[in-house]
Amino acid sequence: MGLPEQDSSNIGLQDAIVQYKTRIEQFLTQVLSAATVDEIILKEAMEYSLLLGGKRLRPFLVYATGGLFKADLHDLDAPAAALEAIHTYSLIHDDLPAMDDDELRRGSPTCHIKFDEATAILAGDTLQSFAFNVLSSHDYQQVTAPQIVKMFSLLTQAATDMCAGQSIDLQQTNTLNTTKLETDVLLINLKEMHRLKTGALIKSAVLLGATCGNANEQEIEILSQYADAIGLAFQVWDDVLDITSDTLTLGKPQGSDVAANKTTYPALLGLDGARIKAKNLITQAVHALQQLPYNTQQLEQLAYYIIERDH
Amino acid sequence: MGLPEQDSSNIGLQDAIVQYKTRIEQFLTQVLSAATVDEIILKEAMEYSLLLGGKRLRPFLVYATGGLFKADLHDLDAPAAALEAIHTYSLIHDDLPAMDDDELRRGSPTCHIKFDEATAILAGDTLQSFAFNVLSSHDYQQVTAPQIVKMFSLLTQAATDMCAGQSIDLQQTNTLNTTKLETDVLLINLKEMHRLKTGALIKSAVLLGATCGNANEQEIEILSQYADAIGLAFQVWDDVLDITSDTLTLGKPQGSDVAANKTTYPALLGLDGARIKAKNLITQAVHALQQLPYNTQQLEQLAYYIIERDH
Repeated sequence: MGLPEQDSSNIGLQDAIVQYKTRIEQFLTQVLSAATVDEIILKEAMEYSLLLGGKRLRPFLVYATGGLFKADLHDLDAPAAALEAIHTYSLIHDDLPAMDDDELRRGSPTCHIKFDEATAILAGDTLQSFAFNVLSSHDYQQVTAPQIVKMFSLLTQAATDMCAGQSIDLQQTNTLNTTKLETDVLLINLKEMHRLKTGALIKSAVLLGATCGNANEQEIEILSQYADAIGLAFQVWDDVLDITSDTLTLGKPQGSDVAANKTTYPALLGLDGARIKAKNLITQAVHALQQLPYNTQQLEQLAYYIIERDH
Repeated sequence: MGLPEQDSSNIGLQDAIVQYKTRIEQFLTQVLSAATVDEIILKEAMEYSLLLGGKRLRPFLVYATGGLFKADLHDLDAPAAALEAIHTYSLIHDDLPAMDDDELRRGSPTCHIKFDEATAILAGDTLQSFAFNVLSSHDYQQVTAPQIVKMFSLLTQAATDMCAGQSIDLQQTNTLNTTKLETDVLLINLKEMHRLKTGALIKSAVLLGATCGNANEQEIEILSQYADAIGLAFQVWDDVLDITSDTLTLGKPQGSDVAANKTTYPALLGLDGARIKAKNLITQAVHALQQLPYNTQQLEQLAYYIIERDH
């Protein structure tokens, strides 16, 4: 696909975010344009949602983790794109009337509002197939077939976990103050829901990058600790932002958790307690990275960014 | 997974159908039971729809085609199961209120009636991930990693085509007699819709079996002709049954195409014209098989069965 190779390991975080975001959006555009989707509205709906923007956090993690092990940047394009397609399909389906019933995503109409409900369901379905098609059909330079199969096992399980998490999350509406469970139990349930709903895909981003780079078992274990911690911190911070930010900055309705009477970290720990929880998780993540004999600056900076962002 | 090996190439069609159906349902039960789906309702909904029965035509085609090339029966379990999971997810989503809005499937309540709409969307989504997880995580005996990657390319494209076909089909409602297109053009459009919606997955069943058996290019070409012909015949015959059968036998409402004022083969060619069309396709399919130097009796019998079945 001929995107330029560049050493991004020593540039600042914001520059790296922009660079990887530009790269993955260029690759997604190329690969979707080349994809055989024989129905024009469906392809438009896929493109609309896939290229709606976003932080591209998951691709960043693939590139940055793969970079630790000098994985081929071109090879990393495929798992990065696959992850972003899976993430996008999940957003389209989560926004549907039967699920979260959201009309706004990243400041734009959600897919079923822009098109219609049937098209949104099918666009999500097709983006999942497309994700796995990109992963299998890429012209890898260094990654071998057994590594591709390994990536499939990782990503398919993460996609399964994500749905289980969404299913649990849907049952959380109106749970706050209506259950007699202790705060400790609610916290355990909340952590498990987040581990599945968003943590699994974030973790798989790190593990896909590591798989492309042939990381060894010990390195995988350390990176898993990092990924688990930032994945949960990301969600705790989202809960905080739902209270402290505003709709324009978030690109989605502020206060929707409170409106839905959902169990969240601020609801269980207080706003300050949730902030401290997020910070502690980031400290754990950075501590894990320090066990690796590589330049982990980008992954470290990203961890801090998670609890500094305002949307 | 230790299911028994058995040479099924010389038994009668009905016995072979029962044997493969039993085998795939046993395998699906095992592999779904072993799957990590960390939300009990979601797993129940997947199981409900996956084990609701059906002819298991696609697994049959995987086993019978793989059998031509002496592919390992245990290896064929994975693509057969993956196909059936993809097929099942598509039925769940097609039945949704925003799509075909069907309440009955194989004589039982559809997934969103039995559970709810959100669960049905998520069960479909998870069955797609599950399908690809089975394909990547199976303990193959003879199939190699490059063959697995090839199967992924085939199945992911077929799954994409299927969604494109469903998207076109949704736009067909109320098209009959409301368009000024000539019958010839309507027939071309109808054929293309069926090629995508059901043909692609049926063809991939044959090609997955052939891939497991390391078929050569010429054999793949011949089998593609066979698969294209039976795939279309299957759909033409479904159109015929929608008129000539009854709801109890079909397990879904009879006459739904006519009620939706859909463009169908009987509507364009007349009932007898559609029957002749289906027969001609089966003759083509059998003719293609005769070019192969193998015992193709099962695939031949299956072709005839397609236009003899009453549901």
